[in-house]
Amino acid sequence: MRCPPLEVFTPSRREECGIFGIYGHEDASKLIYFGLYALQHRGQESAGIAVSDGNRLRDYKNMGLVSEVFREEILQSLRGYLGIGHVRYSTTGSSLLSNAQPFVVFHGREYYAIAHNGNLVNAVELRRDLESQGAIFRTTMDTEVIMHLVARNLKYGLEEALIRALQEVRGAYSLVICTRDKLIAVRDPMGFRPLCLGKLHDAYVVASETCAFDLIEAHYLRDIEPGEILIIDHNGMKSVFPFPTTDSRYCIFEFIYFARPDSRIFGQNVYLVRKRLGQLLAKEYDIDADMVMPFPDSGNYAALGYAEASNLPFEMGIIRNHYVGRTFIQPSQNMRTFAVRVKLNPVKELIRGKRIVLIEDSIIRGTTTRTRIHTLRQAGAKELHMLVSCPPHRHPCPYGIDFSTRGELIAASHSVEEIRDFIGLDSLGYLSLEGLLEATGARCRNHPYCVACFTGDYPIPCEAELQKDCFEK
Amino acid sequence: MRCPPLEVFTPSRREECGIFGIYGHEDASKLIYFGLYALQHRGQESAGIAVSDGNRLRDYKNMGLVSEVFREEILQSLRGYLGIGHVRYSTTGSSLLSNAQPFVVFHGREYYAIAHNGNLVNAVELRRDLESQGAIFRTTMDTEVIMHLVARNLKYGLEEALIRALQEVRGAYSLVICTRDKLIAVRDPMGFRPLCLGKLHDAYVVASETCAFDLIEAHYLRDIEPGEILIIDHNGMKSVFPFPTTDSRYCIFEFIYFARPDSRIFGQNVYLVRKRLGQLLAKEYDIDADMVMPFPDSGNYAALGYAEASNLPFEMGIIRNHYVGRTFIQPSQNMRTFAVRVKLNPVKELIRGKRIVLIEDSIIRGTTTRTRIHTLRQAGAKELHMLVSCPPHRHPCPYGIDFSTRGELIAASHSVEEIRDFIGLDSLGYLSLEGLLEATGARCRNHPYCVACFTGDYPIPCEAELQKDCFEK
Amino acid sequence: MRCPPLEVFTPSRREECGIFGIYGHEDASKLIYFGLYALQHRGQESAGIAVSDGNRLRDYKNMGLVSEVFREEILQSLRGYLGIGHVRYSTTGSSLLSNAQPFVVFHGREYYAIAHNGNLVNAVELRRDLESQGAIFRTTMDTEVIMHLVARNLKYGLEEALIRALQEVRGAYSLVICTRDKLIAVRDPMGFRPLCLGKLHDAYVVASETCAFDLIEAHYLRDIEPGEILIIDHNGMKSVFPFPTTDSRYCIFEFIYFARPDSRIFGQNVYLVRKRLGQLLAKEYDIDADMVMPFPDSGNYAALGYAEASNLPFEMGIIRNHYVGRTFIQPSQNMRTFAVRVKLNPVKELIRGKRIVLIEDSIIRGTTTRTRIHTLRQAGAKELHMLVSCPPHRHPCPYGIDFSTRGELIAASHSVEEIRDFIGLDSLGYLSLEGLLEATGARCRNHPYCVACFTGDYPIPCEAELQKDCFEK
Amino acid sequence: MRCPPLEVFTPSRREECGIFGIYGHEDASKLIYFGLYALQHRGQESAGIAVSDGNRLRDYKNMGLVSEVFREEILQSLRGYLGIGHVRYSTTGSSLLSNAQPFVVFHGREYYAIAHNGNLVNAVELRRDLESQGAIFRTTMDTEVIMHLVARNLKYGLEEALIRALQEVRGAYSLVICTRDKLIAVRDPMGFRPLCLGKLHDAYVVASETCAFDLIEAHYLRDIEPGEILIIDHNGMKSVFPFPTTDSRYCIFEFIYFARPDSRIFGQNVYLVRKRLGQLLAKEYDIDADMVMPFPDSGNYAALGYAEASNLPFEMGIIRNHYVGRTFIQPSQNMRTFAVRVKLNPVKELIRGKRIVLIEDSIIRGTTTRTRIHTLRQAGAKELHMLVSCPPHRHPCPYGIDFSTRGELIAASHSVEEIRDFIGLDSLGYLSLEGLLEATGARCRNHPYCVACFTGDYPIPCEAELQKDCFEK
Ligand SMILES: Nc1ncnc2c1ncn2[C@@H]1O[C@H](COP(=O)(O)OP(=O)(O)O)[C@@H](O)[C@H]1O
Ligand SMILES: Nc1ncnc2c1ncn2[C@@H]1O[C@H](COP(=O)(O)OP(=O)(O)O)[C@@H](O)[C@H]1O
Ligand SMILES: Nc1ncnc2c1ncn2[C@@H]1O[C@H](COP(=O)(O)OP(=O)(O)O)[C@@H](O)[C@H]1O
Ligand SMILES: Nc1ncnc2c1ncn2[C@@H]1O[C@H](COP(=O)(O)OP(=O)(O)O)[C@@H](O)[C@H]1O
Ligand code: SF4
Ligand code: SF4
Ligand code: SF4
Ligand code: SF4
Ligand SMILES: [Mg+2]
Ligand SMILES: [Mg+2]
Ligand SMILES: [Mg+2]
Ligand SMILES: [Mg+2]
Repeated sequence: MRCPPLEVFTPSRREECGIFGIYGHEDASKLIYFGLYALQHRGQESAGIAVSDGNRLRDYKNMGLVSEVFREEILQSLRGYLGIGHVRYSTTGSSLLSNAQPFVVFHGREYYAIAHNGNLVNAVELRRDLESQGAIFRTTMDTEVIMHLVARNLKYGLEEALIRALQEVRGAYSLVICTRDKLIAVRDPMGFRPLCLGKLHDAYVVASETCAFDLIEAHYLRDIEPGEILIIDHNGMKSVFPFPTTDSRYCIFEFIYFARPDSRIFGQNVYLVRKRLGQLLAKEYDIDADMVMPFPDSGNYAALGYAEASNLPFEMGIIRNHYVGRTFIQPSQNMRTFAVRVKLNPVKELIRGKRIVLIEDSIIRGTTTRTRIHTLRQAGAKELHMLVSCPPHRHPCPYGIDFSTRGELIAASHSVEEIRDFIGLDSLGYLSLEGLLEATGARCRNHPYCVACFTGDYPIPCEAELQKDCFEK
Repeated sequence: MRCPPLEVFTPSRREECGIFGIYGHEDASKLIYFGLYALQHRGQESAGIAVSDGNRLRDYKNMGLVSEVFREEILQSLRGYLGIGHVRYSTTGSSLLSNAQPFVVFHGREYYAIAHNGNLVNAVELRRDLESQGAIFRTTMDTEVIMHLVARNLKYGLEEALIRALQEVRGAYSLVICTRDKLIAVRDPMGFRPLCLGKLHDAYVVASETCAFDLIEAHYLRDIEPGEILIIDHNGMKSVFPFPTTDSRYCIFEFIYFARPDSRIFGQNVYLVRKRLGQLLAKEYDIDADMVMPFPDSGNYAALGYAEASNLPFEMGIIRNHYVGRTFIQPSQNMRTFAVRVKLNPVKELIRGKRIVLIEDSIIRGTTTRTRIHTLRQAGAKELHMLVSCPPHRHPCPYGIDFSTRGELIAASHSVEEIRDFIGLDSLGYLSLEGLLEATGARCRNHPYCVACFTGDYPIPCEAELQKDCFEK
Repeated sequence: MRCPPLEVFTPSRREECGIFGIYGHEDASKLIYFGLYALQHRGQESAGIAVSDGNRLRDYKNMGLVSEVFREEILQSLRGYLGIGHVRYSTTGSSLLSNAQPFVVFHGREYYAIAHNGNLVNAVELRRDLESQGAIFRTTMDTEVIMHLVARNLKYGLEEALIRALQEVRGAYSLVICTRDKLIAVRDPMGFRPLCLGKLHDAYVVASETCAFDLIEAHYLRDIEPGEILIIDHNGMKSVFPFPTTDSRYCIFEFIYFARPDSRIFGQNVYLVRKRLGQLLAKEYDIDADMVMPFPDSGNYAALGYAEASNLPFEMGIIRNHYVGRTFIQPSQNMRTFAVRVKLNPVKELIRGKRIVLIEDSIIRGTTTRTRIHTLRQAGAKELHMLVSCPPHRHPCPYGIDFSTRGELIAASHSVEEIRDFIGLDSLGYLSLEGLLEATGARCRNHPYCVACFTGDYPIPCEAELQKDCFEK
Repeated sequence: MRCPPLEVFTPSRREECGIFGIYGHEDASKLIYFGLYALQHRGQESAGIAVSDGNRLRDYKNMGLVSEVFREEILQSLRGYLGIGHVRYSTTGSSLLSNAQPFVVFHGREYYAIAHNGNLVNAVELRRDLESQGAIFRTTMDTEVIMHLVARNLKYGLEEALIRALQEVRGAYSLVICTRDKLIAVRDPMGFRPLCLGKLHDAYVVASETCAFDLIEAHYLRDIEPGEILIIDHNGMKSVFPFPTTDSRYCIFEFIYFARPDSRIFGQNVYLVRKRLGQLLAKEYDIDADMVMPFPDSGNYAALGYAEASNLPFEMGIIRNHYVGRTFIQPSQNMRTFAVRVKLNPVKELIRGKRIVLIEDSIIRGTTTRTRIHTLRQAGAKELHMLVSCPPHRHPCPYGIDFSTRGELIAASHSVEEIRDFIGLDSLGYLSLEGLLEATGARCRNHPYCVACFTGDYPIPCEAELQKDCFEK
């Protein structure tokens, strides 16, 4: 079953995101700020915070990095002891401010703020139903669909309404919800996206990754479990598991690329998993070369593992610029390798005449990698062999990772040889699926991971319409 | 029947606003920009534009003045040949960005942008109904209520859906709506707020006031009539009048204070009406004085009329600062008259020893006027007589003019003598209701104006709950 | 003797400016801020403040309006009890930040901040001398020349150094200087530019115009006299008059246009002088018309005087927009009268069919006036007669008023008839020189005013080179 | 001979800086922009560009990063085919805009822009002389002193004036100067700071480091030699060596910490030198541990060398945050390790129970290192051994590296054991001076490097007054 991305109004319907929640700390907005700061890599487009002081909800969100969106005075105006925050991935749309989260709704005398990481596969369908019943949508976000479903069931109480709503949606969702006096955290039954629970003195915190706990000096308690609805209020913490049990399907790409190496997700530290990816690459590929080098920083840790296992010298001969800013002057015409060189610059004196094994986390469109290889050739490299720490990306992800902003999938339509030639390599190897799973400690047969973007076996079927689209394109 | 303002979530539920629409000009967003620029006095809090190129809707809105919100590049990205714009009045709320208009919704494959000037009196009621049917609200705006009602009826087609929706709402609304390929303009059956139709070459334009036409060099065709729904698309222009006919109730305060003097609204030029207000004041009050002076600029035109009719010399001895900016340093403690002097400074040499008739458009809370009078006393004025170009404001306005941001109504609880003493005047006179109506050319008995804030006779009854609130307070 | 502007590096060497100084108030920077705020009309390009706490000098300046340049936190960092401020006129140059004032220099362990309003006529000559002795210049400002001359004489002590420096310069200069513990105010021997002394409790204040005193609630003591050097320190106030006495030459154009109407300068209130200008216009021109109207605001006060004396009705039928911002979108092509309409819009209903006397303060280039007249013709005016409240501007000003930013002088090369035709008027009249002087209370023969831009009789001869330039151009 | 920093007016008189120059490219300002972008690590406080089109000089500078200071439109207004740029190191001063470079002066009809990297040791003395001759200073920069000296000699022509000026100054200076039609690059006789020459098609470029050439795709020709004055104009390139020959004294700290690892300076690539530092550390220290880890990024390359030579596994278990912004919210009270954790976060799962050799480039004040060690202890490290890739910093640098912004020198007053205890290490070792020099390929006896901050042997004596200060403090 194959399932491509569908673009309705905005350039990208699926976004990676980072979410954070806190209950029971008088400095809630400041701690959410720092939590988001640590989760910034999960989304650079917009940032938002909503807090409640038990009486009133206050929220603020805008386009930009966390450090750009918030100033001390804004945080001070966001008084409250519980709240949630959200960062969203960068897309190219110009005025998508209305899509920024948390999504806030008023209903009766009550309000609800909700922040979502993931992507629903039946959102279009649900939306159509809701619209036919007169619902109106101000955004193109799945979050709004969820909120509509909740609202329709509020007569049963919030908890029951949430359960009924989530029983209708299919896909990936890690959610944090803030009401007047409750913090709720939810993870979908398959647990695609990570969500962790921590403690900071008397306060509870919830975050996409544990790196957010480290910065605020909270400690990690456990993961929110797949299918768990966790409700925190003045009575303490309570969990419900209203969904039928099912196999877990943790997004394995979080390990490969997306999560921070210093985070613990899905029960394991990312750095260590990545290192094992490199070690297993070494088992699969034995290359006669002078040294191993990552494309920093995403390739660093697999490269370390590869170097260790292969006994080749490890070098960091591609330097990552510390000051790559956002807004930018167009380069002059002659600056052809500008786009990659502004971020990564090779150390010519090291590279000249060398046979190099390059480690990359993944290849999506291939064009950036191609230019990077070009600059290494210019620097005088003799042989360039690339090893990729996952199998070829052949299928789109309907569960919240937007490959389309990382480009079209070159491996969907080209063989490894064709890709090697396109990029300009002497050789190219991908880690096997077995190797990938082994690195996580799992077995091929019976593992808790989603690997659909490599295999096309989607753990949750996509909508009929989406599939049709898929095949027609 | 009395009707005070009700504050639900935001500090002010009723806002004056300015709206603008255009159909059939390739430079739509730029012309909307300039239209809003000319309508800036109707709202300084936020500005927004939504345009359609027949295929896609693009919108942008933010807090701030029109000239602050938009830059050339934003306008260029807002490509389209039809669209609408909105400016909103300044309130004190910190993060009311989500309340900025145009309000945009997606429904099915269609989208709708809507901008509203006015205030509904049954919004709370309607909202409660809608919520009990599962509707969710992201804002506290009446506009969202209207859009929900429309959405629920879209199966009947947009025109019919709009009619059915508007049949449920009561209150003041001048609306512009932009769909993929239609511009719609609506004025409520009583026509509280102004709305004008103009032409610019082949394009049609709609605006709250004609001053917006002057700037873009469009010419005025006619007013959108009370109860009219005007639909402009590639087939041309079409009007429907789906509501039972009723008496008009144009907001007379637009003439007195709110509209620009160079605008034509409700069939008359504002400057000339204001001048007649002054002439009629002279008929009602004969004061022995050395000169007549307005509080600029709102008092200017009535003062001219008063001077002409009374034969007293007209002077402009209170100077209005050209550079009153928005963001501002707090004054030092000793600067007691700062708040008014930063905007208006008296010419001491002119005022010293003089008996002066001061013309003011209206007195809402009285505190600002009091400080202004204090600075005139400091400047050595001998006698200060104030004439106000309307009757005392004794009742709140439920139809879209937010007196509360202009303060509580002093005349609701104080006699003219008490107000005179509070302000520190030698004498104080208000124009009679008869005079007010006569200035517009109307008769007391049979006139098309709302004068509820003076009389308490509300042309549209307010909600039961509102009234209760009213009497209890 | 004729004397045109000379442009060396920057587009405009002569700028109008506003200056302010204070001694003896712990909130010095805040009061300077408000003083500059009130003097904003004297310069909109840049603003700067320098203060001393007796030990250290702190300064801040930037491009922009006073309210844009300073924020609360900047003012708080500018701690001190004495200091000076400066606003500079808007020119088109892009990066003239280095020309912003106060000009601060370090010398030995001492520092000096200086702010200047006026223009020297021998600056180029002095600069050449100084450069030949090795001096370097970072700006194109006369202020830097003065500071160099002072520095060369510091061995004689500051007071004596200042006297020696000023004995070398010729031209117009009103100066405020702030050292570690002194405030010094200077006015050139002819007193071209205004400079007033006031008191605020125990503190002394100095400002270009008294309107700056009104805002901070200081009271006016007297003018700094032509040729006076006033030194204020912990010993109190001390005056020296080191220059040979000479006739005063107050810039009469300050009355006509530049100063604020609520200010008192050169011993008289501006509003009242302007009103007399209008009364004298009425004596010189008797026009059969329906009404008198100013181009607001600069024409307002003369128009009042004219209406009073001529007994014609006074109207304000050209409305000045309250929200003319600085940064701006380019208008669309069809918006031909945009440039003037964005600021001034006629009231068509008032103007249609009328014979109007228009009062303008002065005509420099004539092009703006021409477009304004065009919009009045579009509005249906029947006859348009313009009266100007000063004689024709035929000569450039070398003493600090930059007509070139107000355009080239149309009257330098055209007759009144030609100007009338160019502008499109039915008739055009200028006030006579006699009338102008009479309005100030002076006699033609023996008056303290500079009128060189009307007559070409320059009270201080310009440099040979300048004159040469003059004739060659 | 010892020599501490002297602070006159601003918090820091010595700044590291980056300079760039170009001659002969029509897109000069854009290429300077990108050159500065690549040199951003040499200064983050302010950025400036000055260009000439052969006729007029245009410049722009402001506080902030290169990408913040310049926008496309500013660069477009900076038209020219030759020019220079400058970035300055971050200090805490609030309004030091006037100290931003390039420093521009006007002299006669000519202008000069100059940008400086380094620090003069006789600036105070020279300044005093100049002031006694009447010179005035607007900044506290050495650059202004140089420019004064040049100006005094301009009668001999620019080249000769420059030579005479530089014969009077002592200290470190790499300069780029832009006149109407010439680009001049100068390096002091001992060559403290790097300065490289490159070519881009027909244009010549000069930069502090070669990484600036890589980004614009220019190629490296050679270093500007110590004592060389290189003049580029339409006649081509010309070199003069007016100073008596002397030993070179390249700042060895550029290799250790300051320069970018992908740059070639002083004839060698920085990455490779750093790697050798690590290899030599391994020769000097043999530690029984589980792994080697750098404090990224400054420790990366020495750590690689150490790991290679010691055969210990290399790990990157301290993760550097990609999104450390500038403006920042204050952390909450309980976030004690915030200051370091916001930039560096340890991977607990890797570190727990391990014996780790940590590689740091240098220790200045020791406080940051101490907190970093604390976070590693919290993460459960068993043993922490630190090796520093240079000898202890015991002496201030008078030649342009401001240790004071990196804190006071702990090694100036504490033994290695005391530092080890202060930081909380199990052991601490510094590279020997011999090792340091060997890593550069030099011999201890006869080497071209300045090592004064380690030894106190200053190649250029400091001013008497400075020394006095030194001993008194
Ligand atoms: N733009 C850059 N790209 C890559 N490396 C850089 C850049 N700028 C500086 N460096 C290197 O990074 C090191 C400093 O980084 P780091 O150690 O993270 O910061 P700190 O200055 O706090 O020690 C220096 O050794 C320098 O050589
Ligand atoms: N802040 C101010 N408040 C009131 N009047 C001012 C102020 N600044 C300037 N003026 C007066 O306004 C006149 C200029 O305004 P106006 O005629 O509208 O602008 P313009 O400079 O385009 O002629 C001047 O005559 C001046 O005296
Ligand atoms: N852009 C504008 N140009 C000219 N007049 C305006 C404009 N905006 C508002 N007005 C008029 O100015 C008056 C308000 O100005 P003013 O009295 O100075 O301020 P306030 O709102 O404080 O009373 C109103 O009567 C309105 O008709
Ligand atoms: N704040 C962060 N600190 C450290 N590592 C991060 C951070 N954010 C993301 N990462 C890691 O960095 C890698 C991405 O960096 P890099 O490869 O330089 O960028 P790109 O996204 O262009 O591939 C990811 O693998 C991610 O795990
Ligand atoms: S398809 Fe790939 S990216 Fe998407 S959830 Fe599954 S593993 Fe993750
Ligand atoms: S109540 Fe007053 S302000 Fe409100 S609509 Fe009626 S007349 Fe206008
Ligand atoms: S020439 Fe004119 S503008 Fe200049 S100082 Fe004399 S009167 Fe004033
Ligand atoms: S003292 Fe140290 S930092 Fe300064 S120039 Fe010499 S080696 Fe470099
Ligand atoms: Mg990467
Ligand atoms: Mg008013
Ligand atoms: Mg004017
Ligand atoms: Mg470091």
